[in-house]
Amino acid sequence: MDAKMTLQEMMEFLQEVFPQVKDDFVLEQMDGETVTMRLMTAERHLRPGGTVSGPSMFALADVTAYVATMAPIGREALAVTTNCAMDFMRKPAAGVDLIAKGRLLKLGRALTVTEVLIFSEGSDKPVARAGLTYSIPPRRTEDTVT
Amino acid sequence: MDAKMTLQEMMEFLQEVFPQVKDDFVLEQMDGETVTMRLMTAERHLRPGGTVSGPSMFALADVTAYVATMAPIGREALAVTTNCAMDFMRKPAAGVDLIAKGRLLKLGRALTVTEVLIFSEGSDKPVARAGLTYSIPPRRTEDTVT
Amino acid sequence: MDAKMTLQEMMEFLQEVFPQVKDDFVLEQMDGETVTMRLMTAERHLRPGGTVSGPSMFALADVTAYVATMAPIGREALAVTTNCAMDFMRKPAAGVDLIAKGRLLKLGRALTVTEVLIFSEGSDKPVARAGLTYSIPPRRTEDTVT
Amino acid sequence: MDAKMTLQEMMEFLQEVFPQVKDDFVLEQMDGETVTMRLMTAERHLRPGGTVSGPSMFALADVTAYVATMAPIGREALAVTTNCAMDFMRKPAAGVDLIAKGRLLKLGRALTVTEVLIFSEGSDKPVARAGLTYSIPPRRTEDTVT
Repeated sequence: MDAKMTLQEMMEFLQEVFPQVKDDFVLEQMDGETVTMRLMTAERHLRPGGTVSGPSMFALADVTAYVATMAPIGREALAVTTNCAMDFMRKPAAGVDLIAKGRLLKLGRALTVTEVLIFSEGSDKPVARAGLTYSIPPRRTEDTVT
Repeated sequence: MDAKMTLQEMMEFLQEVFPQVKDDFVLEQMDGETVTMRLMTAERHLRPGGTVSGPSMFALADVTAYVATMAPIGREALAVTTNCAMDFMRKPAAGVDLIAKGRLLKLGRALTVTEVLIFSEGSDKPVARAGLTYSIPPRRTEDTVT
Repeated sequence: MDAKMTLQEMMEFLQEVFPQVKDDFVLEQMDGETVTMRLMTAERHLRPGGTVSGPSMFALADVTAYVATMAPIGREALAVTTNCAMDFMRKPAAGVDLIAKGRLLKLGRALTVTEVLIFSEGSDKPVARAGLTYSIPPRRTEDTVT
Repeated sequence: MDAKMTLQEMMEFLQEVFPQVKDDFVLEQMDGETVTMRLMTAERHLRPGGTVSGPSMFALADVTAYVATMAPIGREALAVTTNCAMDFMRKPAAGVDLIAKGRLLKLGRALTVTEVLIFSEGSDKPVARAGLTYSIPPRRTEDTVT
């Protein structure tokens, strides 16, 4: 399935919907099924010792699954996360960005399921893995314009 | 089982280990099995519409499980989250703090499991539920004191 | 909320919907929010060493969440599990039944969320914990018969 | 990493460890990282309507992750599932086998993490997805024989 928005349109949309995080993430690739998202790691994402915190990795997985959900649907700001299961497998490398690779496994009328693998840039061993479910509210069918 | 640290000692410990979040959380209650933690919601935790973001709720669940794990063990800064499964069930109320109630279900030698329910203050319907596993590194056996 | 079916009606309903498992489970208690279900452990549920297998515990959690979902809704055989996250925490005791305690945390129009704790009979330390989401198909709004 | 057992050795090992399920599963492929496992669906795996039950899919994911864990380690019957998160995404097709594709994402000293996708044979849309953690008991450090 093709994406219904360009990369540029999706980035602008994210900046409206997640204004607090607009400086954290760069959407690097998107089609109707896969997404690549970069977390530009900064001091605020770190734990003592220099590794990226769990909540920062959760935020990266969540925004990646959000884009994977929106890409084939189009703007639908109200989609909400209903479930996330995440394994933290390795300590992220210090001083490098994190790269998330998302893949939309199911695009249903009411639910989507996306799997996400997160890597330290330059490594092919995943630091974390997540499966996320988004709930898509029913379309307002009366959105008729006269 | 009794807690090995006082509430005050645990708060100081959290401020060392999670310096970025020390202004977000207040540890309200702790024994060797249960924990009550408050997220003082502020602008940076919110999504458009005024509800608390998923990553902020994840952070709250994570720190709650961390305290539940540390309370019966004592200072062990290296314990790390290995798994989290979380259901987001209701929209948090706008303008109120979130209260997390954690319960340690398993205290093993290598792993702990904690369940957490998160409520908007003043409501008894949970907004989110989480199960978290922490991995506890092996004790340094040479901790002998002469 | 009250249950819309009696214990006896629910047991009969389960036997229609899950004919393969009707000899495994006994529904011991049910209201509109909580459920107690017994797995009568038999040879076919065991692993070498005499402990109950993971799939048998999954089946127990799943049927418990199904009953928690159906109790306040009424007969709705089509509800399906969409997500399960489960922690296996202790080895079940050999030679005793397992008792599952379920609690419905969310009853939405499209989704329910139930948490389940599983105990070896006679112990208060849980052997497993699960969170399950059931998807409820939209009601046929008319079902009109002419 | 290479597998430490042949396909034939692993099948024999499974039949010792999981005697109840030896007629259900066929191990079709295995190296030190990936596993392909078939569930030969039979009446006992089905729900009314002819689809494969959730517990049968859980059992398939579980045995797939067990083989992915054992392949690079060798015989270690005591490894146990500690966590499973599973999304059920589509109704399995009636009358065909299920094929699970497992991939070992982490092989740690104490824990392994495997992801599993399950397909109805002949379809490339997954019916279910799982992430499983196995706990590996410490090795007997010498096993010395005098």
